[in-house]
Amino acid sequence: MKITLAEIAKIVDGKVVGDESLTVTGLSGIQEAEEGQLTFIADKKFTTYLKDTKASAVIVPQGFALDDKSVVQVDNPSLAFSKVISALFEPYTPSFKGVDPKASVGADVSLGKDVVIAPFTVIDDGCVIGDNTIIMPGGYVGQNTHIGSNCTIHANVSVYHDTRIGHNVIIHSGTVIGSDGFGYTQQDEAHHKIPQIGHVVIEDDVEIGANVTIDRARFNQTIIRRGTKIDNLVQIAHNVDIGEAALIISQAGVSGSVNIGKGAILAGQAGIAGHLSIGDGAIVAAQGGVTKSVPSGEMVSGYPAKPHKEAQKVNAALQRLPEYVKTIRELKKRVDELEKKDK
Amino acid sequence: MKITLAEIAKIVDGKVVGDESLTVTGLSGIQEAEEGQLTFIADKKFTTYLKDTKASAVIVPQGFALDDKSVVQVDNPSLAFSKVISALFEPYTPSFKGVDPKASVGADVSLGKDVVIAPFTVIDDGCVIGDNTIIMPGGYVGQNTHIGSNCTIHANVSVYHDTRIGHNVIIHSGTVIGSDGFGYTQQDEAHHKIPQIGHVVIEDDVEIGANVTIDRARFNQTIIRRGTKIDNLVQIAHNVDIGEAALIISQAGVSGSVNIGKGAILAGQAGIAGHLSIGDGAIVAAQGGVTKSVPSGEMVSGYPAKPHKEAQKVNAALQRLPEYVKTIRELKKRVDELEKKDK
Amino acid sequence: MKITLAEIAKIVDGKVVGDESLTVTGLSGIQEAEEGQLTFIADKKFTTYLKDTKASAVIVPQGFALDDKSVVQVDNPSLAFSKVISALFEPYTPSFKGVDPKASVGADVSLGKDVVIAPFTVIDDGCVIGDNTIIMPGGYVGQNTHIGSNCTIHANVSVYHDTRIGHNVIIHSGTVIGSDGFGYTQQDEAHHKIPQIGHVVIEDDVEIGANVTIDRARFNQTIIRRGTKIDNLVQIAHNVDIGEAALIISQAGVSGSVNIGKGAILAGQAGIAGHLSIGDGAIVAAQGGVTKSVPSGEMVSGYPAKPHKEAQKVNAALQRLPEYVKTIRELKKRVDELEKKDK
Repeated sequence: MKITLAEIAKIVDGKVVGDESLTVTGLSGIQEAEEGQLTFIADKKFTTYLKDTKASAVIVPQGFALDDKSVVQVDNPSLAFSKVISALFEPYTPSFKGVDPKASVGADVSLGKDVVIAPFTVIDDGCVIGDNTIIMPGGYVGQNTHIGSNCTIHANVSVYHDTRIGHNVIIHSGTVIGSDGFGYTQQDEAHHKIPQIGHVVIEDDVEIGANVTIDRARFNQTIIRRGTKIDNLVQIAHNVDIGEAALIISQAGVSGSVNIGKGAILAGQAGIAGHLSIGDGAIVAAQGGVTKSVPSGEMVSGYPAKPHKEAQKVNAALQRLPEYVKTIRELKKRVDELEKKDK
Repeated sequence: MKITLAEIAKIVDGKVVGDESLTVTGLSGIQEAEEGQLTFIADKKFTTYLKDTKASAVIVPQGFALDDKSVVQVDNPSLAFSKVISALFEPYTPSFKGVDPKASVGADVSLGKDVVIAPFTVIDDGCVIGDNTIIMPGGYVGQNTHIGSNCTIHANVSVYHDTRIGHNVIIHSGTVIGSDGFGYTQQDEAHHKIPQIGHVVIEDDVEIGANVTIDRARFNQTIIRRGTKIDNLVQIAHNVDIGEAALIISQAGVSGSVNIGKGAILAGQAGIAGHLSIGDGAIVAAQGGVTKSVPSGEMVSGYPAKPHKEAQKVNAALQRLPEYVKTIRELKKRVDELEKKDK
Repeated sequence: MKITLAEIAKIVDGKVVGDESLTVTGLSGIQEAEEGQLTFIADKKFTTYLKDTKASAVIVPQGFALDDKSVVQVDNPSLAFSKVISALFEPYTPSFKGVDPKASVGADVSLGKDVVIAPFTVIDDGCVIGDNTIIMPGGYVGQNTHIGSNCTIHANVSVYHDTRIGHNVIIHSGTVIGSDGFGYTQQDEAHHKIPQIGHVVIEDDVEIGANVTIDRARFNQTIIRRGTKIDNLVQIAHNVDIGEAALIISQAGVSGSVNIGKGAILAGQAGIAGHLSIGDGAIVAAQGGVTKSVPSGEMVSGYPAKPHKEAQKVNAALQRLPEYVKTIRELKKRVDELEKKDK
């Protein structure tokens, strides 16, 4: 790779401040970059890394320049950098073509144009798979499941029967969609399984990480709405409804019948108790344990989760508690003394 | 689906209060139900949903009636509703029959009557599989593993060698049974693997969710006893003993050599440190981090986990800590003042 | 199995204190051991179990003896016990040999001596696999991935393209290596995927548990260094660097671009926020939520994590908070009274 900053500026619709003819020979993150490479800062809060980076040029936000390095100014440096990558690097191309003779396709299956079914993948009876979708090795797609166009289902994914998956969906390896919800009725000290006759709906433009579990609904549907992104090892229980463009970070867990609003964020290892609502744009901090519904736009943290600013105030006081305890003891002595004298 | 309340009452051994001839055309949860549908409330604490439900009829606990809707009274509405589902909906039937020619069955394998081995599943040497058990696609059953009758092992499950699985066991996709326990001895700054020569025992009527991990024992066995139900993404370490009819909710983690009592409940994301006992019927609240053994019947929460009522009291006080800090500061000033005057 | 303590002593280079001719007939953990069996205590803190064990002989640390039982004294009892197991038990031997006709090996693949590729495993184009490595059933090894010698990749593991795996590496079932990092740029209320063009490096002597997820880097590499051991269900995000001989216990989560030092320990369910450093030999206690970097050798706990001793002090005070609140209220009354009198 060899490209001038002028050419980079053209790709990202940006403006060079510095040497337009400077040639960069690689791309890297700001901390790992070496001489000759191009890097970026997503926004001004990362400027602290700039003084140490070995990168030769940096894609920066508008209005930002450097004394000692050439920069390319753009509206959204992170997006710009992705564009550079897409322009310069050939995307990964799978080795498999069409329905591999080592795959197994059931009865009444409808496959779109240029579908790829890799070896040792089973497409069960009655499935419908859209154009350009690829199911990588070791996948299982259960009966009557529909998958849209331009999807990538990575290796060893298990999709149970009757699932509905939209277009442009990416599902990473080991993920399980449509397993039974955790539902039992207790009778005579035994747990009796409640039939889980609903299904799972994954809308367009959703990406789901590796080893995620999304349970089918008891009735009706568990739904992940358009544009939501789910990280690895996340648990989504039965009858959950996740709004559009939400972000569910790794190892978060969402209990049964929870509603999560549009654009909401669950940070890593957060947990939401059953039947609650997380409002549009709300944020649950990492490891937050939510025990009552969260209004739109609110950020909560801790266990039990409360508004984050309040939690921080409480936590700051808590850190000094041993000090306060000393003060209380001293006060007690001094009041004892005052009372003694008073008598 | 079209059925009268009189017929529903017959299925669930219940009593109609209202219009026996009312026909319902579908089943649903109380919040999602539409007109014409039948729903239920599990117990009286859910009555708050009744005023908003669009359902036309409701299965309710004994002694409960509604002014504006017909109900069917039963002892256990949740169980009754499951019976309605089982009576009216055809259960899922797998597409595979017998040993699929695309499966791989090793030497000295004993298969019961009507066993189904789906495509791309490997049954390794010396396995014994009971009548009517189905192993879905992409499964691996290791050497000398025994699986009982009427089990369903969903797609892409991995069972290591020498595992013992009882009858009527359900294991969901992506789950791993019998991987090595996490055991090392430190010597010369390196971790030396401790051989894990034990195995895993899963008794009858156990259900295990998706992407669960259950490690084999260092010696002897890791055991999940009869009727216990395990949710998705749960970790069970080596040499754990889980009593009968326990419930282990999603993302809980149980460290090595822990004993969990009969009917105990670990809520979501709870964690138990090694070598502890959780007593019969004890409950660990969601995200609880247990660092010492829990007596039978006790409920604990928080980190480090303590009796839940105590934890709630502490937590309530904690929320007001910033207030108390103010009070302490005021008191200090007032005592200073009193002492000054006193001199 | 039948072996005298004299023979055991020879295997472990230890010294019998008691009856050299005593024959033991099995091995077991100290709590589960039965009469006739040999057990061990790893160090002196486990001596409490000795009075109840039914074992007939015990491997113990140097200088340690028992009145009523023969012992074998060694430097490292746990390691010694592993040596006994290795000497007496035949190790597990897989049933598969060479490239199984039911496996699928792509173009330009280089396989070392005695490589085993089990049924229904796909080795994609351009892979290089070293001598004596075994890939168990249902595995997927993506394009241009290199795996060293003497590795065991258990059933249903998914390794994405361009991964580099060293020698003597063990990866348990269901684990996913090289899935895309969780990286998006927000623009017009949608999340745009950031290409993840880096890869994953796993160095020699690493063991990775079941259903672990390790994401590929955005650029450059995610790296797990020599001798590190990772338990089940752990999440390692993109661009993480884990030092040598670290221990990452079950369900811990490491966010993007975190550095973890040599010999550091993350206990179960611990979580580390993005871009932080965990120093050499540092320890994060179970469920600890780390929000700022941890110096070498420090132990932290709680959320937000702080030095463990401090956290314990704060926690001890916290448990008595309801008491202190009472004291504060009493003091307030007494000061009120004193002031009244003072007027």
